[in-house]
Amino acid sequence: MDDINYEQHAGNGYLNQPLSYDPEMAEVTQGTPMGELLRRYWHPIGLVSHATETPRKVRALGEDLILFRDLQGRPGLVHANCCHRGTTLYYGKVDQDGLRCCYHGWAFDVEGRCTSQPCEPEGGRGRQKIRQPWYPLKEHYGLIFAYMGPPDRMPMFTKYECLEVLEVDEALEANDTSIGSGGPVIVDCNWLQHYENVVDPYHVPILHGSFSGTQFTEQMGSMPHVEFEQVELGIKVTSLRPLDGNRTHRRITMAVLPTLRVVPSPRVSEFARVSSIGWVLPIDNTSFRIYTCGRIREEGTMADGRSRLNGKLWEELTAEEHQKYPGDYEAHSGQGAIAVHANEHLGQSDAGIVMLRRFLKNQVDTVAAGGNPVGVSFNKDDLPIIFEAGNYTLDEPYDR
Amino acid sequence: MDDINYEQHAGNGYLNQPLSYDPEMAEVTQGTPMGELLRRYWHPIGLVSHATETPRKVRALGEDLILFRDLQGRPGLVHANCCHRGTTLYYGKVDQDGLRCCYHGWAFDVEGRCTSQPCEPEGGRGRQKIRQPWYPLKEHYGLIFAYMGPPDRMPMFTKYECLEVLEVDEALEANDTSIGSGGPVIVDCNWLQHYENVVDPYHVPILHGSFSGTQFTEQMGSMPHVEFEQVELGIKVTSLRPLDGNRTHRRITMAVLPTLRVVPSPRVSEFARVSSIGWVLPIDNTSFRIYTCGRIREEGTMADGRSRLNGKLWEELTAEEHQKYPGDYEAHSGQGAIAVHANEHLGQSDAGIVMLRRFLKNQVDTVAAGGNPVGVSFNKDDLPIIFEAGNYTLDEPYDR
Amino acid sequence: MDDINYEQHAGNGYLNQPLSYDPEMAEVTQGTPMGELLRRYWHPIGLVSHATETPRKVRALGEDLILFRDLQGRPGLVHANCCHRGTTLYYGKVDQDGLRCCYHGWAFDVEGRCTSQPCEPEGGRGRQKIRQPWYPLKEHYGLIFAYMGPPDRMPMFTKYECLEVLEVDEALEANDTSIGSGGPVIVDCNWLQHYENVVDPYHVPILHGSFSGTQFTEQMGSMPHVEFEQVELGIKVTSLRPLDGNRTHRRITMAVLPTLRVVPSPRVSEFARVSSIGWVLPIDNTSFRIYTCGRIREEGTMADGRSRLNGKLWEELTAEEHQKYPGDYEAHSGQGAIAVHANEHLGQSDAGIVMLRRFLKNQVDTVAAGGNPVGVSFNKDDLPIIFEAGNYTLDEPYDR
Repeated sequence: MDDINYEQHAGNGYLNQPLSYDPEMAEVTQGTPMGELLRRYWHPIGLVSHATETPRKVRALGEDLILFRDLQGRPGLVHANCCHRGTTLYYGKVDQDGLRCCYHGWAFDVEGRCTSQPCEPEGGRGRQKIRQPWYPLKEHYGLIFAYMGPPDRMPMFTKYECLEVLEVDEALEANDTSIGSGGPVIVDCNWLQHYENVVDPYHVPILHGSFSGTQFTEQMGSMPHVEFEQVELGIKVTSLRPLDGNRTHRRITMAVLPTLRVVPSPRVSEFARVSSIGWVLPIDNTSFRIYTCGRIREEGTMADGRSRLNGKLWEELTAEEHQKYPGDYEAHSGQGAIAVHANEHLGQSDAGIVMLRRFLKNQVDTVAAGGNPVGVSFNKDDLPIIFEAGNYTLDEPYDR
Repeated sequence: MDDINYEQHAGNGYLNQPLSYDPEMAEVTQGTPMGELLRRYWHPIGLVSHATETPRKVRALGEDLILFRDLQGRPGLVHANCCHRGTTLYYGKVDQDGLRCCYHGWAFDVEGRCTSQPCEPEGGRGRQKIRQPWYPLKEHYGLIFAYMGPPDRMPMFTKYECLEVLEVDEALEANDTSIGSGGPVIVDCNWLQHYENVVDPYHVPILHGSFSGTQFTEQMGSMPHVEFEQVELGIKVTSLRPLDGNRTHRRITMAVLPTLRVVPSPRVSEFARVSSIGWVLPIDNTSFRIYTCGRIREEGTMADGRSRLNGKLWEELTAEEHQKYPGDYEAHSGQGAIAVHANEHLGQSDAGIVMLRRFLKNQVDTVAAGGNPVGVSFNKDDLPIIFEAGNYTLDEPYDR
Repeated sequence: MDDINYEQHAGNGYLNQPLSYDPEMAEVTQGTPMGELLRRYWHPIGLVSHATETPRKVRALGEDLILFRDLQGRPGLVHANCCHRGTTLYYGKVDQDGLRCCYHGWAFDVEGRCTSQPCEPEGGRGRQKIRQPWYPLKEHYGLIFAYMGPPDRMPMFTKYECLEVLEVDEALEANDTSIGSGGPVIVDCNWLQHYENVVDPYHVPILHGSFSGTQFTEQMGSMPHVEFEQVELGIKVTSLRPLDGNRTHRRITMAVLPTLRVVPSPRVSEFARVSSIGWVLPIDNTSFRIYTCGRIREEGTMADGRSRLNGKLWEELTAEEHQKYPGDYEAHSGQGAIAVHANEHLGQSDAGIVMLRRFLKNQVDTVAAGGNPVGVSFNKDDLPIIFEAGNYTLDEPYDR
């Protein structure tokens, strides 16, 4: 039993000194290269219903914020610590002056203007000079989007045709349970580890097929022929698979700036254009969540998009089942809180990831040099963006 | 809904880069400026009943200590790690030689002298040279006070008239449940965030009035006229409020070195001199607790000083109630583990805090330059200190 | 009560500034001096039964590893993060190609060779160049041993006579519940704090005698006469105690490189050579566990070696009992996560510890200078090592 031949020790663990992660691509906080790129876009930070007269904690891009809605119905998003003496506005209350801090009653409107300082002479003679750090918001697609970047570079809000043009029996439904994460609502690893998964079709027959039992349809269980292409707004992945004897299933998935997963349903029930968009929200350097909006025919069915493993939702699995039936969450968080690219050995099947990383790096550099990244527009007449993404059939046999 | 005017972006969160806390005023550990100031005074570290033959863990000014009482009834306070090989004396036992370490039986008396080394030849020939780091103690006011500073600057123990001169039906009662913190017994933020509250009368009608329902009396629900004055031992705050038609309620509160809250009962049931003193004990840089001693008429009523929100004690509130009925604890811990003064925008109502911080800074500098801070005396004939603090009435109408 | 004489303030806590730990001796990770010494030896990392077709997490010397057994019955130990893109192999599955990663199906044999890359053209044309960092294993004594050092210095596996030569009614039994730790299976302090205990016989009558009630036999409750000797492979401790009127109990304990506790049963039920060996496994800088193999007469009795305090196993004690009945775990973990030798004041009874530390330091230096430490052999004809350790009787009265 113990006469294993140990002559060939190349690659022995002793020689393997793990390296550190690359902060330039991983970090999302204020002033970091990727953080500056991300801040040029609008990001969802909650459902429309999350902005109420009860302050709500929001953490995005490493910043702690408070979301509220004033008595005129306008949503507001401010830095959590009151600019007076730092008490968190989480304990504040909304009244006619806006969100009022619990400690000395300073109140702020939805753009952070200080409207009231009840302890100060004349209600605060100098309050016009006071501003609670704030971010502009837009409500659309059932979600609340925030822009956390430089004011003079604030772009128009981007609209997407797949969510603007609905079939007659369809409606839009928003969701905040991180559909597509394959795990809990808040995922404990850097957002890129999930985002790269979007341009990685080869893992589907392995992780979601042979490993954990077919989680999607049989159709998705075979290894596809794949083409990657960098398009203007991101990376497009075309996968071809056989579909009965005479036809080919053509599936197009896209990773679009800034953090969009444009992924047709993997439970291929119909062949059509993509029906939903997921926005990955980097919460901070080591966690993220996903907001989704999609076209549905029946209320409440957006949430059906969540994965089931061994027939159960992720949170229903035992520890033993988690190990036995891994999904995307295990694959991504299993790379660590922040994956170390320098330790990797990429193959041809990683061509999409290579392309995506190069693309993101170019955008990071563009912003660092003072330019604008792709996907931001300052033209209010822009039409909604049309994505090629979807599940399609070709009337030709699959013969690769 | 989404045509909010965003032209005026002054103060947008993108431009707000939060700064770091000031270690000079915040840190309390050995060798720090504030730590050195604090170490010039006696601090309560437990109730008299806490020193027993069972070792008890005490953490104060960032140091881990063990409190015990020897068989002669004397209390002792020593650094937790045995000077032999570092095992914590928490597992020690008290016998005729003092506190004996569980590992090799080295024993120490209440001044840290090594009295026994049973594993050494002759019980330890060199044990006179061994000293377990220790601190002198004094028992008074039902509390145990420790002096953790330079031995040659150890001051007399300060006595306070309001706890020395009792009415005929009064007795003293000590308390260790952090009366005045508005929250749990151990509060998870730097002690200064609570201490500044003492010279901040303006928050009372806001936080303890309109926000969480009147927690004190109606009398305290109105915005007072306030005068701040730096006196020899600290900051004195005089607040005037109307009292029926003909009289004025004059309330004096004081923040006294080193960490004394000299605060008359906010549940103004009678008009008299202050009846209790609270000592804020900085446990370390990011937590504190409060020991109190006061004059009471009925046993057990000192604890009535604890706040109630929505009629409940703090620990009885649900998460929803904590958000809805914030008190001092939420206001102070909500500033973060250590508040960042550089992020603040102070108003006129903060004059007391400005005065207090300047006062503390002067004392820190005095000690750093080799002098003695105010409030320490080396004269054993000093009389107890008389405080002006209390709730008083003036026979003149309130007309400010 | 408060007129304690404080004139003699030598050793007051104010003057005691605790120092930091010595990384050279404490740290066990890759590239550290002690880490490099430890890596020259075989270390147990699990029971033979732990290597199965279900991947198992192992953490040793600060490295996160995965243990498995292939379909041919060979055990394998690899670095946890797949060399493809870093997903942990914990979620992998064993098949005919070895351990296959859940994400893209790369498979590795028990020496880390990449045998399959199903997503790559031709199953991976370049997979021969890919190696998952791995460590060689040996199964012996019911345990799985790993060698984590430089391949060209891999020594022969050392055998020990006390586990090779059995009495006719004896069998070997392995155990992974950290017999000898006096506490939980995974102990939360640096391994040296336990290891030094092996050459510290003086604590036995204190900690395991008078303090917590006699945990071992009455025989062990008296303070012994002790001789320390550095021998080739470590430190030998000879303790003499009286045994009835006419005889002397001679007990020999050894601390042997790299981490062996060669300790006869402290529950002295018979007088014989040592019957078990414990291997301390440093999990990382601040935790360890102990694997044991011993000769037993009845199956399942190896575990009887675990300590009982107040009649209970460690995990059955209440918090109050933990304080009242401390054992080795409390003594060692009570020194902190990593003990600071610079704060110590050693006595003559610590001569064994001084000798052991000097010995370890010499070995650390030898390895750092490019040499081989003692106890490694490259000669496959070496005989099993015979230890002097055991409980013996001398037919002469004890008269020291």
